[in-house]
Amino acid sequence: MDTPGPDIVRGRVARTKAALDPSLDGLLVTSAAHKGWLTGFTSGVFIAPGGTVLLAKSGDFYETSNVDLEECAAEIPHLQVVGYDWTAETHDERLARLIGEAGCRRVGVEAAQVTAARLAALRKSLAPGGVEVSELEPLIDPLREIKDGWEVEQIRAANRASAEAFAAILPLLRPGATEWAVSAALENELRVRGHGSAKLAFQSIVASGPRSSLPHASVTDRAFAVGDLVTFDFGATWNGYCADVTRTLVIGRASARQRALHESVVAGLDAGIAAVGAGLTFAACSEAAFAPIRAAGFGEYLAHGLGHGIGLEIHEGPRIETKGDKTFAAGMVVTIEPGAYIPGWGGVRVEDDALVTAAGREVLTFCGARELLEV
Amino acid sequence: MDTPGPDIVRGRVARTKAALDPSLDGLLVTSAAHKGWLTGFTSGVFIAPGGTVLLAKSGDFYETSNVDLEECAAEIPHLQVVGYDWTAETHDERLARLIGEAGCRRVGVEAAQVTAARLAALRKSLAPGGVEVSELEPLIDPLREIKDGWEVEQIRAANRASAEAFAAILPLLRPGATEWAVSAALENELRVRGHGSAKLAFQSIVASGPRSSLPHASVTDRAFAVGDLVTFDFGATWNGYCADVTRTLVIGRASARQRALHESVVAGLDAGIAAVGAGLTFAACSEAAFAPIRAAGFGEYLAHGLGHGIGLEIHEGPRIETKGDKTFAAGMVVTIEPGAYIPGWGGVRVEDDALVTAAGREVLTFCGARELLEV
Repeated sequence: MDTPGPDIVRGRVARTKAALDPSLDGLLVTSAAHKGWLTGFTSGVFIAPGGTVLLAKSGDFYETSNVDLEECAAEIPHLQVVGYDWTAETHDERLARLIGEAGCRRVGVEAAQVTAARLAALRKSLAPGGVEVSELEPLIDPLREIKDGWEVEQIRAANRASAEAFAAILPLLRPGATEWAVSAALENELRVRGHGSAKLAFQSIVASGPRSSLPHASVTDRAFAVGDLVTFDFGATWNGYCADVTRTLVIGRASARQRALHESVVAGLDAGIAAVGAGLTFAACSEAAFAPIRAAGFGEYLAHGLGHGIGLEIHEGPRIETKGDKTFAAGMVVTIEPGAYIPGWGGVRVEDDALVTAAGREVLTFCGARELLEV
Repeated sequence: MDTPGPDIVRGRVARTKAALDPSLDGLLVTSAAHKGWLTGFTSGVFIAPGGTVLLAKSGDFYETSNVDLEECAAEIPHLQVVGYDWTAETHDERLARLIGEAGCRRVGVEAAQVTAARLAALRKSLAPGGVEVSELEPLIDPLREIKDGWEVEQIRAANRASAEAFAAILPLLRPGATEWAVSAALENELRVRGHGSAKLAFQSIVASGPRSSLPHASVTDRAFAVGDLVTFDFGATWNGYCADVTRTLVIGRASARQRALHESVVAGLDAGIAAVGAGLTFAACSEAAFAPIRAAGFGEYLAHGLGHGIGLEIHEGPRIETKGDKTFAAGMVVTIEPGAYIPGWGGVRVEDDALVTAAGREVLTFCGARELLEV
């Protein structure tokens, strides 16, 4: 596991604190991805689920059970790591004590990152000390949307690993191979070629024949048959960062309709990518991507939006909305993944990842097979 | 993917509705594991994240975007599956319409299963229709703690697959093998030998040498050396249900201290399992398991509690608390996993899964190597 280094991580902490409403004197961070971003420590098996980051005016802390204290103290040197003996006090008792020691009177927590039950428990444990807890709009998510150079390199490397993994399983694709066996082989290749943790970006999709019309199809024992469209949606990770790639190919020779559908979707992908750039709107990008698919007569089979941000999570901001006036910003890394799905017949989705730049975009995906492969 | 069949799933829905406060006329269920339990559909890659179950006096519904409608309608036949066109209305608009159509005036949602932001959004979208949203204590979790016979068979099968996978990688264990390579091989075996989905129960732990003293150690590139303790914590899944197994062995010959520590932990495991049974307390079971470890002089190195429930999630109720008077109930499936960790030197954890019965318990784990293997 490589980490971004202390200066980068300290910069993230500083940007987070700068974004905090000045009427608050502390921020509690509980979600795994946010904690990973703020600490640079993303490889823990459970990322110390009980651990909490407290960023306070008087100092920055990571609070965890003694169970994980040795590992966290070694991996999170830029925060004050404080443990507690779970046999003597609860997580919430320790946290209340820490917040008191840090001199906080009013702390915030992002409402989208905490359950209603957890928020109520926090308020209950902090009320006796006179500490208020405010529910906040997303604060770290918008910061995470803009990747630094180190993060872009991790996503690029995850894409390289993903491309190698897909190339490695192409020889397995033949009539009679099952979705299950092919997905197991693909996931092993992704795992072995990734780096820094055992995590895959997400459970891979291998959807064959009529099942390719299901955008989120589960993997089954179905055997590939001649004439099947097969959609592969997969991604390796590199030091915790995700790639997200989709390719669709045909077992045997493609029919004219399969070829026409695939060509229109790839034309949509190309047009969508060409419409990515700082200051350009998500809606215009979506329209650009969908236009070739509509022009080819497949518009009624568009099923979902065009893409989303990737990073430490496989789905993070921004969502590339089809309406409205939100725009790309330099440093975002997004998927562009047009797809069209004909129920009972099959579907095609093709997806690349792109870094948004001031001048436009840089494609981070190295996977071949953007043309319709016949295997 | 095999599913439990409509009668079992309908029984779960009926038990859930029977547990609902009669002043409520509907229950919203949003978390993936709860939805999987109520629908029998656990294999979806994203388990249709936008989908919501509504159990109402007037009927039972699964509401999802049209993106996943085809798959959900096929897989969830015992609920009324209703879709919405995401280009025309939002998830919350559709849900508000559905709740109105179902005649609900006061719906509940488990506070531990919904973020504070989601709860606020639900209240905002339902207020115009005069529908109240109540925060509920855990309602489905306690029902899920008691497994039916079908669920026990899935956990037993996941354990068989896990035992086979561990046996398959034993030949790889030798000085110079890395945690990373061994964990990749183990996870491939777990995936191939599991059934019904590509899911692993959790990211496996392979912690060698001094890293075995970290209960939640991440996998690194560290190469095994002669004299290392190595802890493996892993589990396959079977139709979505998890196994959870831990074994610790030594590379080369064990030292006297390693042998003494391992013997005390296995004695703790045996004593803990013997103290599992309907009506027996968690605290007495924990004491029974920790006693041999304390007696051997390793009491100060106990770091965590004794175990937890498993099922559709790798961590679910009950938590085997070390204090208090809570008791086992027949049908629970729990891990018993004593461990002792000597900082900078190494640790030992050994873990089996057990079904609680009226007469005591039935061990569901088939993995060998409860004695200290030297490889």
